[in-house]
Amino acid sequence: MSLEKVYNYIDAHEKAFIEDLVRLVKQPSVSAKGEGITECAKLVEGMMREAGLLTKVLSGKKGNPVVYGEVKSKNSSKTLLFYNHYDVQPPEPLEKWKYEPFSGKVVDGKVYGRGVTDNKGNLVSRLKAVQAFLEAVGDMPVNVKFFVDGEEEIGSPNLEPIVKEHKRLLSADAAIWEFGGTDRRGRPQLYLGLKGVLSVELKAKGALKDVHSANAPLIPHPAWRLVWALNTLKDKDEKILIEGFYEKVQPPSKEEVECLKRIPFEEEELKKELSLKQFLKGVSGFEALKALLFQPTCTINGLLSGYTGEGSKTVLPHEAMVKMDFRLVPNQKPDEIFEKLVLHLKKCGFDDLEIIRHGSTEPVKTSISDPFVGLVAKTAEKVYGERAVIYPISAGSGPMHLFRNLLGYPVVSAGCGHPEANTHAPNENLKVEGFIEGTKFIATLLNDFAQ
Amino acid sequence: MSLEKVYNYIDAHEKAFIEDLVRLVKQPSVSAKGEGITECAKLVEGMMREAGLLTKVLSGKKGNPVVYGEVKSKNSSKTLLFYNHYDVQPPEPLEKWKYEPFSGKVVDGKVYGRGVTDNKGNLVSRLKAVQAFLEAVGDMPVNVKFFVDGEEEIGSPNLEPIVKEHKRLLSADAAIWEFGGTDRRGRPQLYLGLKGVLSVELKAKGALKDVHSANAPLIPHPAWRLVWALNTLKDKDEKILIEGFYEKVQPPSKEEVECLKRIPFEEEELKKELSLKQFLKGVSGFEALKALLFQPTCTINGLLSGYTGEGSKTVLPHEAMVKMDFRLVPNQKPDEIFEKLVLHLKKCGFDDLEIIRHGSTEPVKTSISDPFVGLVAKTAEKVYGERAVIYPISAGSGPMHLFRNLLGYPVVSAGCGHPEANTHAPNENLKVEGFIEGTKFIATLLNDFAQ
Repeated sequence: MSLEKVYNYIDAHEKAFIEDLVRLVKQPSVSAKGEGITECAKLVEGMMREAGLLTKVLSGKKGNPVVYGEVKSKNSSKTLLFYNHYDVQPPEPLEKWKYEPFSGKVVDGKVYGRGVTDNKGNLVSRLKAVQAFLEAVGDMPVNVKFFVDGEEEIGSPNLEPIVKEHKRLLSADAAIWEFGGTDRRGRPQLYLGLKGVLSVELKAKGALKDVHSANAPLIPHPAWRLVWALNTLKDKDEKILIEGFYEKVQPPSKEEVECLKRIPFEEEELKKELSLKQFLKGVSGFEALKALLFQPTCTINGLLSGYTGEGSKTVLPHEAMVKMDFRLVPNQKPDEIFEKLVLHLKKCGFDDLEIIRHGSTEPVKTSISDPFVGLVAKTAEKVYGERAVIYPISAGSGPMHLFRNLLGYPVVSAGCGHPEANTHAPNENLKVEGFIEGTKFIATLLNDFAQ
Repeated sequence: MSLEKVYNYIDAHEKAFIEDLVRLVKQPSVSAKGEGITECAKLVEGMMREAGLLTKVLSGKKGNPVVYGEVKSKNSSKTLLFYNHYDVQPPEPLEKWKYEPFSGKVVDGKVYGRGVTDNKGNLVSRLKAVQAFLEAVGDMPVNVKFFVDGEEEIGSPNLEPIVKEHKRLLSADAAIWEFGGTDRRGRPQLYLGLKGVLSVELKAKGALKDVHSANAPLIPHPAWRLVWALNTLKDKDEKILIEGFYEKVQPPSKEEVECLKRIPFEEEELKKELSLKQFLKGVSGFEALKALLFQPTCTINGLLSGYTGEGSKTVLPHEAMVKMDFRLVPNQKPDEIFEKLVLHLKKCGFDDLEIIRHGSTEPVKTSISDPFVGLVAKTAEKVYGERAVIYPISAGSGPMHLFRNLLGYPVVSAGCGHPEANTHAPNENLKVEGFIEGTKFIATLLNDFAQ
């Protein structure tokens, strides 16, 4: 039984694996600020080579490098591709971290650090599954390809030309997406799609410089302009007011509704973790889950104007800005939504605002009835000893559509995370136990995919 | 003619006066940071004694010391009080200064330094007028009192109990407020009042911590709550929507309208300085001036929520805050406006917001028909050889109401500044010529006030 050898190898190398993970976490790689990107790409390539892969850096005309790696099976013609990313979210607010965000500190069976779950832990786990096969068995059950993005956290704005240019290199029979994990009761979670996202920034400008607020009757107020503009975008009932925003939105299919009903939604745990008496608009149970997965949104990510220090300052700031994202559901296109937004602001009289488009990705799904979904679910149930929880789509986003739609193979997201991982938030962490179990799951999937 | 002797003394001592001013400017006294306060209060007291005044430090339970000084006339029972302050604004941004902000460097007939006009120049000018009488004539035409605040630049939050405790000590027949000067054509400017101000902060809170914006359909959005709440406070036409906000506001009286019409409003210079094509709502001329002086306002001083760095971050922030000030016109009370604000937010369904009250001062005016106003104007015209420009009220704020209302005497603001003095901004400066002329003006006023 080659899989047993692989499991043994993984168990015997737990400490070394975690050391490698910590090494990667210690390397900052904040794409939003361009911090540590080159260094991190180099480190990832090095770790791939150490695991036994051939590597190549894929660079577009602009943007951060993609690290590509592959290893061939001697006996199989099937290929599984892993999509991961080495870039991480900004660590701010720094004062809310228990440990330095790039320390990779290991405490009570958890590794702490920005990006440790999202997505360095998943990346290392998959590399280690490959290494385990190569070291313990001397061959891979299937061909494996790694595609490690460097701009996922900023919406992968430069990925499409790279994927298009390397269509043959990236051909595969199926792909495993970057994230996933187990729920609070240890049930493995699989995600069959992603919402789209469109990130924008609005800037309002007034006088040449900040002035004393005594001048308020005469001098334009950019912060007020921004408030009024924002108010036209969403009402107090959370309804997005941009004309035609909802026109392509579809309710979940019968099959998806059935799938939703089987999801044990851990809503009380989530409310407790976030100190919430109830969810937005009082939804709960099936309705909450349906909203989470099938509802498009408009979120303020950041707001800034003028004096934000202690006490008060009678200043009239000369500029104000908001950063926001729209989460989009299947059939909504970021390009179309951006156009509608621009048109809306113009119609409402806010064409004085500067509108900056940041990253965007399209919504995407793989069908529940795809055989690859059944295979991943069966493997997960075997490894975790629990029924797999299948999400027809995830509330998150990413460039999955380039693989699912452009390259045309099924994509399922499954990984080694856990519900209190604090991704995108202070004190992001990954359980060592989940990491090891997740590595075994990936190894088993490689094995089963060959059958 | 004793006044001639006084003028001669002032002319003969120009160099020594400027040296004293430079000495005071060299002593930092930034109340916002508590920098150099004790040292500066001591220096001011020393300079008062050198000028021939008896001094006393007035301290409240908290806050910076007030420096009090007085000198009695042998023949007059009339008393004039001068309100000044020895604290200054923070000098930042430092890189924008041509000379060190606390250097007191004299270049081309101007003294440069933080606080040289606001308010150390005015203070020294008044002290020197007193000194000139005492040295050149051997007596004062009237009794003189100095009240030198140490917290004006942070809203004088601790002044009321001090004034209340020393009502008898601070009794007078009239007062001259801290600031004023001549316009670009050399016309002296007098201000008969101040707007009030009320500074508040609103905080919205959501979940216990920031979460990934993928959770947007379920998790409360404090930044949106804040936007919606703000939107209920002021509409796109700059109308403040708080119930009863305008109920005590009165239009300028006939007398004040006449007064406004006589003000040569240098609006093109202001627009050019701020790179503005037009003022808010397109007002200009008389309408702009009326708005500036007689319109209450609601200004966003600062806005903060979530991620405000480079690029984008798909975060749903768990809190959001706004700092804002209301400028109030006569009859509007900060206490009442604060109550109305609280009630308004409650009525509009925003009682989840935390409302923090920062500093406030009341609006205040002295009537144009007050004989003291006529006296000051007449004196100014005599000294400057130009018609005095009378502002029935200033757009700024300060603790003037404590003197005008609590102690009950007329207050007029007049000083030795000029339009390019850059108060509250880098390269603050005072013209030596204006300083000497202002000192003669104060001396003449002391003389005329005795008549």
